Formats: sequence, C-alpha cells, structure tokens
Amino acid sequence: MNAAIISIGDELVLGQTVDTNSAWLSERLAAIGVKVGMHITVEDELGAVAEVIEAMCERSCVVLVSGGLGPTEDDLTRAGLARAMGVDVVQSEEMLASVEGYFRDKIGREMPARNRVQAMKPVGTEMIKNDWGTAPGIRAELDGATVFVMPGVPSEMRGMYEHCVEPAIQEIGKKDEVEGMGTLRRVILTKKVNTFGLGESDVGERLGKLMRRDRNPVVGTTVSEGICGVRIRAEYEDADGAEKAIAETVGLIEEKMGRFVFGCDDERLQDAVVQALQRTNRTVATAESCTGGLIGKMITDVSGSSDVYKGGYVTYSNEMKMTCLGVPKEVLEAYGAVSREVAGAMAKGVIEQTGSDYGVGVTGIAGPGGGSDEKPVGTVWIGIASRAKNGEIRCYTALLNQWGDRARVRDRAAKCCLQALRFVMLDEPIEKMSWVREVAVIGGT
Amino acid sequence: MNAAIISIGDELVLGQTVDTNSAWLSERLAAIGVKVGMHITVEDELGAVAEVIEAMCERSCVVLVSGGLGPTEDDLTRAGLARAMGVDVVQSEEMLASVEGYFRDKIGREMPARNRVQAMKPVGTEMIKNDWGTAPGIRAELDGATVFVMPGVPSEMRGMYEHCVEPAIQEIGKKDEVEGMGTLRRVILTKKVNTFGLGESDVGERLGKLMRRDRNPVVGTTVSEGICGVRIRAEYEDADGAEKAIAETVGLIEEKMGRFVFGCDDERLQDAVVQALQRTNRTVATAESCTGGLIGKMITDVSGSSDVYKGGYVTYSNEMKMTCLGVPKEVLEAYGAVSREVAGAMAKGVIEQTGSDYGVGVTGIAGPGGGSDEKPVGTVWIGIASRAKNGEIRCYTALLNQWGDRARVRDRAAKCCLQALRFVMLDEPIEKMSWVREVAVIGGT
Repeated sequence: MNAAIISIGDELVLGQTVDTNSAWLSERLAAIGVKVGMHITVEDELGAVAEVIEAMCERSCVVLVSGGLGPTEDDLTRAGLARAMGVDVVQSEEMLASVEGYFRDKIGREMPARNRVQAMKPVGTEMIKNDWGTAPGIRAELDGATVFVMPGVPSEMRGMYEHCVEPAIQEIGKKDEVEGMGTLRRVILTKKVNTFGLGESDVGERLGKLMRRDRNPVVGTTVSEGICGVRIRAEYEDADGAEKAIAETVGLIEEKMGRFVFGCDDERLQDAVVQALQRTNRTVATAESCTGGLIGKMITDVSGSSDVYKGGYVTYSNEMKMTCLGVPKEVLEAYGAVSREVAGAMAKGVIEQTGSDYGVGVTGIAGPGGGSDEKPVGTVWIGIASRAKNGEIRCYTALLNQWGDRARVRDRAAKCCLQALRFVMLDEPIEKMSWVREVAVIGGT
Repeated sequence: MNAAIISIGDELVLGQTVDTNSAWLSERLAAIGVKVGMHITVEDELGAVAEVIEAMCERSCVVLVSGGLGPTEDDLTRAGLARAMGVDVVQSEEMLASVEGYFRDKIGREMPARNRVQAMKPVGTEMIKNDWGTAPGIRAELDGATVFVMPGVPSEMRGMYEHCVEPAIQEIGKKDEVEGMGTLRRVILTKKVNTFGLGESDVGERLGKLMRRDRNPVVGTTVSEGICGVRIRAEYEDADGAEKAIAETVGLIEEKMGRFVFGCDDERLQDAVVQALQRTNRTVATAESCTGGLIGKMITDVSGSSDVYKGGYVTYSNEMKMTCLGVPKEVLEAYGAVSREVAGAMAKGVIEQTGSDYGVGVTGIAGPGGGSDEKPVGTVWIGIASRAKNGEIRCYTALLNQWGDRARVRDRAAKCCLQALRFVMLDEPIEKMSWVREVAVIGGT
C-alpha cells in the first residue's frame, strides 16, 4: 500500500513556515508498512488544491492532507476536495455540533459565527472528530483512494492521526489484503549509525557493497553538521524480521567503521564521551581558545556530566592562557597562540589546575579574519593530556577550512576534540581521522 | 514568473529529515517577485525523479531541484534529470576539474575515485560552480523551463543559490519581461524584528492594533528558541514601496517594544552585546556554572569578539568556584551553589581575576535532576558586576521551568544573561523581563 502527503498553505509555499507535518507523517506511515513516495506542498488556491488532490488519488491508495481547515477566507481545503470530487459543499449538523461543543467544553465560550464554515463538508464524505482543536477532519473516497483531511496545526494533526487516521489506514490495509486488492505492504523500519571523523566518500568507500541499492536493508549516508550518519532502512514482512535485519546490518557497519561510530539515532558525540568517562570513572577538564566554551557547553549538555566534568577555562586572550593555565610567555612568543606547543601546554595546564584525569586544550583560527598562508583559517591545534600516562600529551592539527564559516569551523573543532578524547581513551590512533594533518606526542612514559 | 521546488531524498520521504531547503528557497524567491506554487519531495528513485522534474517543467518557468548529487549510489538526480530530458549522462571535464580542485584546495588531498561520479551531467546541460562543497550543480533547459539542480546540504545549497542561481533567475525574469512572456509579480518583502525578555502574549498586547490582519504590511509574531520575532510582510507593486513601508512599521514596533528589541532578521543577542561593548570600549568576562560554557560560546560566535571578551571560567564544581573565582566556602555552604550570593560572588570574582569592565556570573538548576520545592528545576541566579559602578553587582533570579528540558533551560539562561548585560549597560531595569522574580543590588557606590 502506498500513500501521498499533501500540505496546504500559503505560509508554507512562501517559506514563512517549515513543513514538519510531512516528515512526521512519513515516519509514522513507514512504521506500519505504508510507503510514502511523495510529499506535495501547495498554496491556498482552489484550483491548485483540487488538482493536486486528484493527481495524488490517481497514484496512491491513501492520501493524507493537512492544512486549510481554519475558519478564515484563505482556508480552501474543504472546497478544493469538493471540486476534485465534483460535488457540492454542505453544512453538516454533526460537524456543527462538534465545533460548537469544542468551544463550549474546551475553550469555555460560545462558538463565534465565523467558525460555522468549519462544519461544512463535501457531499458524501464523513467527518473525523477533532478533540484537539476546532476543525473537524474529513474522510472521502475518490478514484479508489481514501483521502483523510486533517488540520495543519501540528498538535491537532498528530492527535487526529494517532487516534483516528492511523487505525483507519490499518483497517483499509486489512480489507485490501482479504479482497486480494493489495496488501499492507511490508514494514519499514529505519535506524541511523552516527560516525565522526571521516568524510562522506571515505565512509562510502569503507561501506563498499553494503551500499548496493538492491540490498535489504538498504544502507545510505547523509552528512549533517559534520556527523556522517549511516542510514539503514529495512523493508520486511513483519517488524520482528525488520528489527533482526537492522541489528545485523548495524553490526556489519560497526565492523567496517570501527571507532568512528559513536552512537545511533539521536545519540551525540558528547553522550558517548560522558558515558565512556563514567564507565572508566575518569574526569576531564577543558581549556578552550577558539571554541570559546563550546566544548564545555557540549559536555554539560549531558545530564549527569557533573560526575565527570571538572570544569574549564575559556582562555580567549594570551594573557589568560598564561595566568590561568601557566602557558609560558616564551612558548606563546616563539610558536604563536595557534601551535602544537600552546595546545599541549593548555592541556597540561588544565590537568594541573583542576586535578582531572584528562585535559583538552584547543587553539585555532576560526575566521573569517586572522588567517595566514602558513596558518590558514580553519587551522586548529588540539592537545589531549592523560594523567594515567604520566602526563603524556597527544597533539594534532586539523585543517577544517573546507567547512566554510566561523560557526562551522568552531563546531567541527569541538567535535574533533571530543572524538580525539574518545580515541585517546580507547588507545585508537587519532591520525586516522580525515582532517588530521600533523600528529605529535609530548612527554609521558 | 512562477517556480516549483523539488527536494530529492529517501531521508525526506521517510521522515528522517525535515526539509528546510524548500521554505528557505521560497522566501528568497518571494523577495524577488517569483511565485512558488508548489514544493514536491520525492524518494531516491530514478523513475520518480524523472517524472516529477518533467511534470514541474510543464507548469513552471523555473524549477529548483535540491538533493541527490552526492557521490554514492543512492544519488540519482543527475540520471533522473537526464531521463526527463531523454539524453545520456556524460563525464564533464569542467566538472571534474571543479571537484578535483575542491578536494585539492579546500580539503587538501586527492579526490577519491568515487567522487568522479559528481562530475557527470546530462548532455546539453551546464555546470554550476560549487564553492561550498564537492558537488557541482547543473543548469538545464526542458520544455521551456529552466532547471537548476543544487546540492541538498543546506549550506551548499544556500551558497550556490545566492551566488549563482538567484542572479540567473533575475536574468531570466528580465528577458521574459522584454519578450512579454510574463513579468515579475508584485514584490513581497519580509522583515523580522527580534525581541527577548517578554512572552508572546505580552508582545502581542504591546503591539495592539499593529497586528490587525487587514494591515499592509501585516505584522505577526513567532517564537523560536525563546526569541519572540515580530514578523513584517509587505506586498507592494515595487521593492521601493515595500521597503519604505517596512521601515516605517519597524519604527512603530521599536517604539512599542523599547529595549527588548535587540536586532533584526539574522541578528542575534550576542551580536547586539558585542556591538554595545565595542561602541563603549568595554570588556566582559564570564563565570558560568549551569550554562557550562554556552555564554562564552555565544559571545565568541561573533567575529571580532576578542576585542571585548577577556575569557571565562566554567566552574561546574563548587571546588572550581572557590579556587578560580574566590567564592568563599562559607557562602557556598550557607546559601547553596544556586543563590544570589554565589551568582554575585562569581560575577565579582571574574572581574577581579580578569580585569574586565563587566562580569557575568550564572548558577542554576538545568535539570532534569537537582530540583527541590524551594528551588525547582529552571531556577537560575544571574549576577552582573560593573567596574564603572565601583563593583556594583545587580543580581536577579529567573524561573525558566516553563521552557521544558535541560537544553532549553540552559539556552534561555544564557540569553537572559546577555539581555541582562545589555540592560545593565543601558541602565534599563532588568526586572521588566517576564521571567524575572527577585532582584537585588549588592555593593557599588
């Protein structure tokens, strides 16, 4: 069984509002085995609304429409559906009672006259009750497809979908199966394996044949904020089969990607770091220059990070690098603030000041100004000091200029620090990361 | 002139990613008078991609496509466009040079073999240069429409649109006008006035009649991440008229909203703070507990902030509050870490340690754990110390629990600090903000 999703509203095609309903509905439909091939967003224009509903009914078993059910003049979905069906719009007593009831019981006042229009529906259609707002939904049959019209307000749409529309779609699926007209297709489950430290093409190369389009589960990659997510999509007869297949594919991906994998789905790099520190009962402290506090912010994003995070210094000026962290003036003068020596001294200093097990020092050129031929914008030096290794400091430079602007250079620099800290904890060579240039180890046993 | 927008990607129709490109493009197109009638999102499936491109070319002058230009097997937009055009895909030497050049100059290594595919294009089409990532875009003519294919990664898409695609669309518009084939429509311009510190209904009350729906420009409010934006939308015959009307409405809004306004459009609170410090030649330093470095991060988001930001301390533990900032042990024990006294001592300590003109201290309960009846989750104490006022410290507590989760409490706490610093600099009473409870002034002249 396949479905199409239609969103209606000028605010959407004008770009004033981002459509989040379509993604939400798609995910819900995939989980019950309904395949969504297309989302369409159309303006509040009678002809366009009618045309799109008709076109989608021709190609889909189920058509989900949201938006355009409000009480104002630009709400044309009722009329558009009627035009697509070639019927009139009439007042429904049942719907009128529903709208009046919502005002009386939920809002505590009489229904304003202008809301009467929300009780209109095309001849031959059914009302869908709305317990989450004033606008009732509409269910219609057209060209062999079933159309469900829902309000555009996300909370109302979600309530109506969960309680009324999804059960109805499952009924349609069962009926079709009995009559041999089509089946509730197979269940689609998805999962994302998160990696950091390799470019998308390097990830693709490692995954190799896993990315063949005819594989099930199918594997693809997407990059968002420097994180390369390996997406898995399993299409099976039943949820059990899909889950098993996904688990197996996750295992294969982890094998190929190694330590670059730090988590799944919503798990962040900072979650992995905090967990690793908690597991080993170790602490960390930060000494930040170019990231300006971002690493501390990321670590403390994680609830419970106070167990493992001692705190940090934002030593944006050379003066603070010296007074707070004891970076020698001569080192700053001889090598410059963005150097292996200073990153190392910052990492060492923060361990000494705070008594933490690990120290992270980072200094770089975030841009847009401050770059030179020798040290272009995007040059970052990172030092990770380990108390357990007698104060050994692993330093490396990453060149992050391909990420573009200041915000991205800083975000990627912070992520490089967190991944480098994980690698140090796991005794994994930092230099495997795509953006790493020079590597050096200072001190230690 | 009308346009259609196509987004391509399994992750979109499966609901794993919300499509933000379409809204962004729509807004940009509206601003140059191009009407977008439809957005379509399709899966990574060759036939579907080709079909949708063809259908949209039939009904539009300009078709903007994003996504599916990556180097992996699920990137089918190049082939889909070729099928819609009925031509083959060939290797382009120009594109190959561009991809290779990007790897060499921006990433600093050889192009991996698999990225060769990004240099393929349908016969008879033109390359669009990509300075923001590896995938070149493609410009094609089909059925009298001009198709622009761009990468799906938002930053790359935006860079390419702004620098290459928008100028090309304006050229097409001019040509059509000359040939009488259609004109650029009425211009819609929008602007957003950003405020922080009042709830949306308080903002609505202050704006009053400005929010009438039959006004032009029309004025509305939206809240995003605690920032209440006052949106203005003007629809005029020409850009001059629209701009004039918008400027006038901005003036009226500023009159009613006062110091709560900190900027327009993309301007952030941290931009306003850094500008104010630069203007008055003053410096600030931060002492953060619950925000964990976020305020330092926000201030250093602004390029050039090193002139005014001395640096900061992330004193997540009581120990660090004592050793780094000199908060007396007795004060911590008597009042607790989340208290007026500690916030004040942190602000005072950071001025003394760094020699800055202003000091920001913040301590609070970000949650989900750690709350009590007396100090529920969301309780934050903020201290702003001013050297110019003989070390006067203005302290206040904000109750931010209505914002929900840990991330939001921390974000709003950081924004409260920045707005409070602005208010102190402007001699504006902090207590006007909606979320402020108790206020106290310690020391000073």
